[in-house]
Amino acid sequence: MRIAELSHKSGIPVPTIKFYLRERLLPPGQLTSPNQATYGEEHLRRLRFIRVMVDVAHLPIATIRGVLKELDQPVVDLHHVLGSALSTTLAPRGAAPEETRRRVADLIARRGWCVKPDSPAAQALAEVLAAFTDLGVGDLADRLDEFAAAAERVAAMDLAAVGRRRTPEDVAYAAVIGTIVGDRFHLALRRLAHENASAAMFAVRAATFACGKEAPT
Amino acid sequence: MRIAELSHKSGIPVPTIKFYLRERLLPPGQLTSPNQATYGEEHLRRLRFIRVMVDVAHLPIATIRGVLKELDQPVVDLHHVLGSALSTTLAPRGAAPEETRRRVADLIARRGWCVKPDSPAAQALAEVLAAFTDLGVGDLADRLDEFAAAAERVAAMDLAAVGRRRTPEDVAYAAVIGTIVGDRFHLALRRLAHENASAAMFAVRAATFACGKEAPT
Repeated sequence: MRIAELSHKSGIPVPTIKFYLRERLLPPGQLTSPNQATYGEEHLRRLRFIRVMVDVAHLPIATIRGVLKELDQPVVDLHHVLGSALSTTLAPRGAAPEETRRRVADLIARRGWCVKPDSPAAQALAEVLAAFTDLGVGDLADRLDEFAAAAERVAAMDLAAVGRRRTPEDVAYAAVIGTIVGDRFHLALRRLAHENASAAMFAVRAATFACGKEAPT
Repeated sequence: MRIAELSHKSGIPVPTIKFYLRERLLPPGQLTSPNQATYGEEHLRRLRFIRVMVDVAHLPIATIRGVLKELDQPVVDLHHVLGSALSTTLAPRGAAPEETRRRVADLIARRGWCVKPDSPAAQALAEVLAAFTDLGVGDLADRLDEFAAAAERVAAMDLAAVGRRRTPEDVAYAAVIGTIVGDRFHLALRRLAHENASAAMFAVRAATFACGKEAPT
């Protein structure tokens, strides 16, 4: 298809597609004349992927380029590909204090989690625990093990859905989406659940809300 | 205390503190001479709060100003304050298709959730479900009700911890931190749980990882 049709089918304006081509997020089309190219279904699929990474996951272009590059390799080590995807959107800022880092290491040992000791997620968790303490709300993480158990259950469901794919490439593709877009999925669910719990606990105007059939009256 | 001591105690450089003063994130100190002011414990507390919102939650200055403004009001309606905090970091981009919006409305009804029909979280969830479908991985959300139930349990624990405070102002403060920094808390836990689940499912080099005592050998 021509670029105009690619634009029509993907809903992405032609200048934006040209930008993605220049930025090498999208491979070039097949030249049919010196200044005309045709594009295939894989271009359309990739454009949809880029659009979601920009619009829904809010990732910067450089990060998306890195993710695509990883997905373009033949997959020889799925755990490695997933590790890269997992790290993409969780860069810790600084070093957390020794005490909180030990608290995270203890948690990992208690849960029997098989994770790299220098995992960005472990660092990010230590950073968050330190922030809670600094702000005088350290008790928010008092039930750390229960929160960790909840995360385990969700991760098991996530991985089961991803693992149903036939080829390692399809698993990697689904895992990247499940990780990056999945963040927003779980965040939105948690926000809704919070809003509901807050209504039950604090609302003075609950009557103005739309409640489901099982809500207390 | 003088600004130099405030800087020392908070670990924030003097020019950055002056920037926060100019941006009205920090109220002015008490003038002791035409060009000298003193600052109190509430300035220190607020600086720590700003630093976490910048460094850990990565919020832009304008958003932090909005959150602080909300927290500075006397709290008459906790549910409203929490609602503002909940919406802060989850602005949906566009309108999701009617079909996914209906799917979210059905979920809310099934769970009996007491939430506003135009809730940003409901819109964000519809957007994510549409993105999964567009990308050909709609099955990632197949167990929507189980994911929702997991979010409910986490939200109940979150709210219980927040609700232990004595004054509505303290509840609001803890709830804002629990919501905004809590996002990163749960994200980090989920990432660790994913890394562990992926190691069990896909790793070809698991021996190079540090595993807890309960991990399979």
